[in-house]
Amino acid sequence: MGKIAQQYLEIHPWMLIEDGFHESKALVSESLFSLSNEYMGVRGFFDEGYKKESLIGTYFNGLYEVPKDIRRSHYKGISDQLHYMVNAANFFYVRIYIQDDLYTFNAKEISNFKRSLDFKTGEMIRSYQVKDLFEIKFKRLLSIETPVLSHQAIEIKPLNYQGQISLQFGIDFGTEHWGKPGFWQVDHFLKQASLAHTTTNQNLFVSYQLHLNTNYQSYSFYEHKLNLEILSFNLTDTVQIERDIICLVDKNQSLSLDDLSHQADKHLKLASYQKTLSSNQAFYQAYYDQNDILIEGDLKNQQGIRYCLFQLVNTYRGVSEENNIGAKGLTGEAYSGHAFWDSETYCLPVYLFTNPKAARNLLMFRYNTLNQARRRAKELDCKGACYPIATLNGHEACDLWQHASLQFQPTSAVAYAIWHYVKNTKDDEFLIHYGFEMLVEIARFFSSRGQYNYDKTKFGYYGVMGPDEFQMMVNHNCYTNLLGRESMKYMIDVFENYHYHPKIQETVKALDLSIDEIELMKDQIQKMYLPYDEKTKIYEQHEGFHDLPHIDIHQIPVTDFPLYSHWSYDRIYRNDMIKQPDVLMFMFLYNQRFDLETKKANYDYYEPKTIHESSLSPSIHSILAAELGYMKEAVDFFGFATRMDLDDYNRNTKEGLHLTSIAAAWVNIVYGFGGLRSDGNILKLAPYCPEYWTSYQFNFHYFGSNIKVFVTKHEIKLTLDRDLKEDIMIYNQTYHLEKGITTIHVAH
Amino acid sequence: MGKIAQQYLEIHPWMLIEDGFHESKALVSESLFSLSNEYMGVRGFFDEGYKKESLIGTYFNGLYEVPKDIRRSHYKGISDQLHYMVNAANFFYVRIYIQDDLYTFNAKEISNFKRSLDFKTGEMIRSYQVKDLFEIKFKRLLSIETPVLSHQAIEIKPLNYQGQISLQFGIDFGTEHWGKPGFWQVDHFLKQASLAHTTTNQNLFVSYQLHLNTNYQSYSFYEHKLNLEILSFNLTDTVQIERDIICLVDKNQSLSLDDLSHQADKHLKLASYQKTLSSNQAFYQAYYDQNDILIEGDLKNQQGIRYCLFQLVNTYRGVSEENNIGAKGLTGEAYSGHAFWDSETYCLPVYLFTNPKAARNLLMFRYNTLNQARRRAKELDCKGACYPIATLNGHEACDLWQHASLQFQPTSAVAYAIWHYVKNTKDDEFLIHYGFEMLVEIARFFSSRGQYNYDKTKFGYYGVMGPDEFQMMVNHNCYTNLLGRESMKYMIDVFENYHYHPKIQETVKALDLSIDEIELMKDQIQKMYLPYDEKTKIYEQHEGFHDLPHIDIHQIPVTDFPLYSHWSYDRIYRNDMIKQPDVLMFMFLYNQRFDLETKKANYDYYEPKTIHESSLSPSIHSILAAELGYMKEAVDFFGFATRMDLDDYNRNTKEGLHLTSIAAAWVNIVYGFGGLRSDGNILKLAPYCPEYWTSYQFNFHYFGSNIKVFVTKHEIKLTLDRDLKEDIMIYNQTYHLEKGITTIHVAH
Repeated sequence: MGKIAQQYLEIHPWMLIEDGFHESKALVSESLFSLSNEYMGVRGFFDEGYKKESLIGTYFNGLYEVPKDIRRSHYKGISDQLHYMVNAANFFYVRIYIQDDLYTFNAKEISNFKRSLDFKTGEMIRSYQVKDLFEIKFKRLLSIETPVLSHQAIEIKPLNYQGQISLQFGIDFGTEHWGKPGFWQVDHFLKQASLAHTTTNQNLFVSYQLHLNTNYQSYSFYEHKLNLEILSFNLTDTVQIERDIICLVDKNQSLSLDDLSHQADKHLKLASYQKTLSSNQAFYQAYYDQNDILIEGDLKNQQGIRYCLFQLVNTYRGVSEENNIGAKGLTGEAYSGHAFWDSETYCLPVYLFTNPKAARNLLMFRYNTLNQARRRAKELDCKGACYPIATLNGHEACDLWQHASLQFQPTSAVAYAIWHYVKNTKDDEFLIHYGFEMLVEIARFFSSRGQYNYDKTKFGYYGVMGPDEFQMMVNHNCYTNLLGRESMKYMIDVFENYHYHPKIQETVKALDLSIDEIELMKDQIQKMYLPYDEKTKIYEQHEGFHDLPHIDIHQIPVTDFPLYSHWSYDRIYRNDMIKQPDVLMFMFLYNQRFDLETKKANYDYYEPKTIHESSLSPSIHSILAAELGYMKEAVDFFGFATRMDLDDYNRNTKEGLHLTSIAAAWVNIVYGFGGLRSDGNILKLAPYCPEYWTSYQFNFHYFGSNIKVFVTKHEIKLTLDRDLKEDIMIYNQTYHLEKGITTIHVAH
Repeated sequence: MGKIAQQYLEIHPWMLIEDGFHESKALVSESLFSLSNEYMGVRGFFDEGYKKESLIGTYFNGLYEVPKDIRRSHYKGISDQLHYMVNAANFFYVRIYIQDDLYTFNAKEISNFKRSLDFKTGEMIRSYQVKDLFEIKFKRLLSIETPVLSHQAIEIKPLNYQGQISLQFGIDFGTEHWGKPGFWQVDHFLKQASLAHTTTNQNLFVSYQLHLNTNYQSYSFYEHKLNLEILSFNLTDTVQIERDIICLVDKNQSLSLDDLSHQADKHLKLASYQKTLSSNQAFYQAYYDQNDILIEGDLKNQQGIRYCLFQLVNTYRGVSEENNIGAKGLTGEAYSGHAFWDSETYCLPVYLFTNPKAARNLLMFRYNTLNQARRRAKELDCKGACYPIATLNGHEACDLWQHASLQFQPTSAVAYAIWHYVKNTKDDEFLIHYGFEMLVEIARFFSSRGQYNYDKTKFGYYGVMGPDEFQMMVNHNCYTNLLGRESMKYMIDVFENYHYHPKIQETVKALDLSIDEIELMKDQIQKMYLPYDEKTKIYEQHEGFHDLPHIDIHQIPVTDFPLYSHWSYDRIYRNDMIKQPDVLMFMFLYNQRFDLETKKANYDYYEPKTIHESSLSPSIHSILAAELGYMKEAVDFFGFATRMDLDDYNRNTKEGLHLTSIAAAWVNIVYGFGGLRSDGNILKLAPYCPEYWTSYQFNFHYFGSNIKVFVTKHEIKLTLDRDLKEDIMIYNQTYHLEKGITTIHVAH
């Protein structure tokens, strides 16, 4: 895979620790020490400034700008709705003046550098000594309970320095995005508060208060987009300063300056660093109680998976239907903050089995943006709704037409996610009131985008790109055909099963869904073509794939990776090389429809052609490898998933964390080693402890119960906090689990 | 085809005449009344200004700008060398003040409007009466003999007006391009002269002199980029003014202002309107003597084909190896002045048989830009040379990667053109000194871009777009495979036949051409895959074409055309609909390799799927239709070619003339009805007079002889100005033609 671990942090089960400053990893650390709380995210940049390369990033979920230089294409169907999550204000801005000299972080002048991030509190601490003058410590915290609230704490301890110090605390809206300034317009400067807006007319109000343990003098001033408060004091003893910060996003500019100030003041009155630290601690404790993953005998993966759990819950826990999960979460500008099909495909299973309310909210995001998807389908000369490849606001934000116009896995992923969610929650209310409307429009899209071949014996999708983005414009991509078929089929099933329901009838009428339409879909479903060889049991990724020129991927020099940067663009698209699972992807999604022999045949055929250039690829392969008994491969792939960012495997962690891969790490262990299968009529478990581990433990929620699964080589112990309403199957035997502990011998 | 004639000009065998002002056609007329002389081109805009929509365009061959907003893609192989022929100075600028009021053309205030363009002189005359005040006449002329020279003449005849008139003569560098100003920087204003440069550091110096038949007062001034000379006089009798203009392009900024002024003065000293009129007349007379096409019994096509001949020689006659033929010639901004593969494929045959020196210069353009093509091949991770889809300076200027990176017909067209040129001129000197070097690099490109299929039984091109641009990214496009094969084959033939020649040996050494490389090519040639069905004799356009979803193109509403503007972009690419000939294209190029039955089978299969959205499509179909005896279709298609612009069939003549279609019109009549075949070992003729015509006559040059072919329904008469060195075959019988007249009965 051309992936090499670059470990530089200490191994610790509950923390990230950087001991000594790793200058060459400065940007990677900035990403790794990011904090977020779904509402907002802050990269681990230096409060006091850093002269070398740094991405001072703060982001708010769904707060976006539009590119100024959109070139309106004269081709229909090429999106003109581009937008991206914009870098917001630096509200941790501090400048330190020793006497009158500006001090900024300089690796050559410091010692005893230490930085830590505590998964149990979300507190980030950074401390070091400056020459022999003083020690300084910065702490940072975002409140989980009150997401608009964050804190900064600074402690300065004099050593061989006694004298005057000035600190400039700022709110800086002059931040850069993609290296360019000028995104924000500041409307009001108040004392310790600024109100600014984007060109998309979204407001951000930032306000703060300070607490010092010493006397000081202060005055305010404003320059350009920077709101400054200057504090001066004599450093004789250790000085402690705390700043409580409120950030209010007002997406519709519906609030007045007074409203905003008032709201901020109300929050500030109640705020303190210590209080947030305690409430965060309580939150994380409850979270790990119900969701922790334990790996005994493998501290690296233990740290990796805990980091994943920590960043996952920070990024999204379903606070609002307006939020989604960007591929990089709230930790960088890469992928523009966009949510992809990853949300439904890799993240939703995690929430489904840890926080079903959050899973529902992820789906509600798609329901709330159904009109944008309808508009997009029209642009593509199709009916129904086509969900975007990349989006913050529901409109298609991908500026590469070859992806935006040819990839339909985001659309089928929504239908699949509804099916998967309803199957595992029996949330009929959701299905009937929201799900069905989406399903009708999705089915219509797949019906109208598909085409019959020349003699009308085969139906399918022409000119598409499946999940494997190395095959750009192909016909009868097996994944797209299968998922298109299942999307239509599920809609018809729901229609037929619930047609008596008044809300369903209302939707049918409102959408003008006709029997003719359904009859047509039935014919399309029946003729949907899946290229498949009975003899070899191999599904052909798309018509003609088998005959493509062969590349031995192991012969590709490691310096050629990532291929997008080193190969001529067109060259990527004309070989039998695979970027990420395509056939194997649907064998994961509809796992139980395929027998082991088929899965083995396809795994053995496709995996060796796969370069895993997508960070999401290893997990799916790990899960299938585990199922096929390829345990070493399974564990190896799992290592990429848990430590993707910690060890910077893809050499781009500096751009931000791979948030959706982090979700996939959960899926990896629970589906892969835990053997969870949620695509059938009964939930299945088949835990297996790889020989490399002593034991491991994971949790999942199911119909109101929390189920702790402790797995050793010989037995599994299931601990339930209440009786489970539904049967589940363990090693192919049905169990009716009750509160307490159930022990089962491991099947081999 | 959704193509409807919109005739509004008078029918005349030697002229364009617009009788009365056709306001709704103002922009179309601007294009039709364009003048050019290969060196420069001027649209037929109004000297005196026109308040409604107008494209004031003057262009110089090869003088370009680069887009300011090139977004550097991070994908390799996506061209960063974009450039376009930029609109230059309006040197016909005149503003007329009656007393002190500015007069500009106003359709409501004028009468007796008449505009004409004389194919025998290149003189454009426009006259009308303004209210009852005066009559005014504008004349315009570009010199063929001295391409830097042009003329403007104005005649004002008083009717009920006596009094002061002021004329402002200008050189305006404030011209707009794509509706935007600001492309030129004026460095010097002199009296009646300006020097300006582009951001690409190309200079343009414009200088003029005036002649009046009356006394006047004058003064100069400059505002912004406009250099003005104001003349005032009393209008009592008819006033005549002539302006002689010199435009000097200095592509390397190698000349000083003094040099330029001096050069311009030298030309101006000798210049006069009447002199240029006479020399133009002599030029065109000689041209028609040797190249005229006569169609008796079809005045519309007569006018159409003469207009084609006229614009063709104006646009290109091989004055310089640095010039090429833009798809719109020098008549508009559409297609950015770029030369396409049209130059070799549609234009070169015309020059080959009318002006072989010009044909050679077209090829020299490619030789002189071989290094740019080498650079492009490298960008595409290939060896050798890849010629650009669109260019002015040899670099790839097409900003759509899906064309620039997937279409290789420009590259194979160069190899074909060398083969075709050498075959019909025996210009071994060219082949050995220039052709072979290109051929080696082209063959290398086709060898390295091609791939073997999985089991290495087939060789061909994956992920390509053939001439039919409605099939974007396909494998084994029959055209690309065949032309790739022939390109390699021809190189090897030349290598093997001329390996003894020192220059060939030198080239082989310089290019490090090895026997291994040739052996590899031989294997590739042998395994080159052409999808073909022995039974039906049909070549499959690309692997999988036959099974594509079928569209009945006659069911597409006429309002959907052009499809690029009305269909979702991706929708165009997933049907069996064809934009322009692909299989039929190679049956035209290698016509004699296919038997009539094969040509018929393929024509009958492909033509009904073809919507002819390219203006070049009808001619090729006309030629094949004529060969197959589909004479009505042949004549119908021919009408589109000759009158494409005159009747604005494609509704976009306003953007400029379809210059390369104009070339195709010549090819159409000579190959189609004349039955010329130049792809075999002996030149063939098989003239046929369609029943709709009385007779027709065309000329062609061959090995130093001019051959006039007069065709009636019963006989053909060949008139030679000297003995023909080579035998030719007429109706499958070999002739050794001598000076004088040979009469042959028409075969049926």
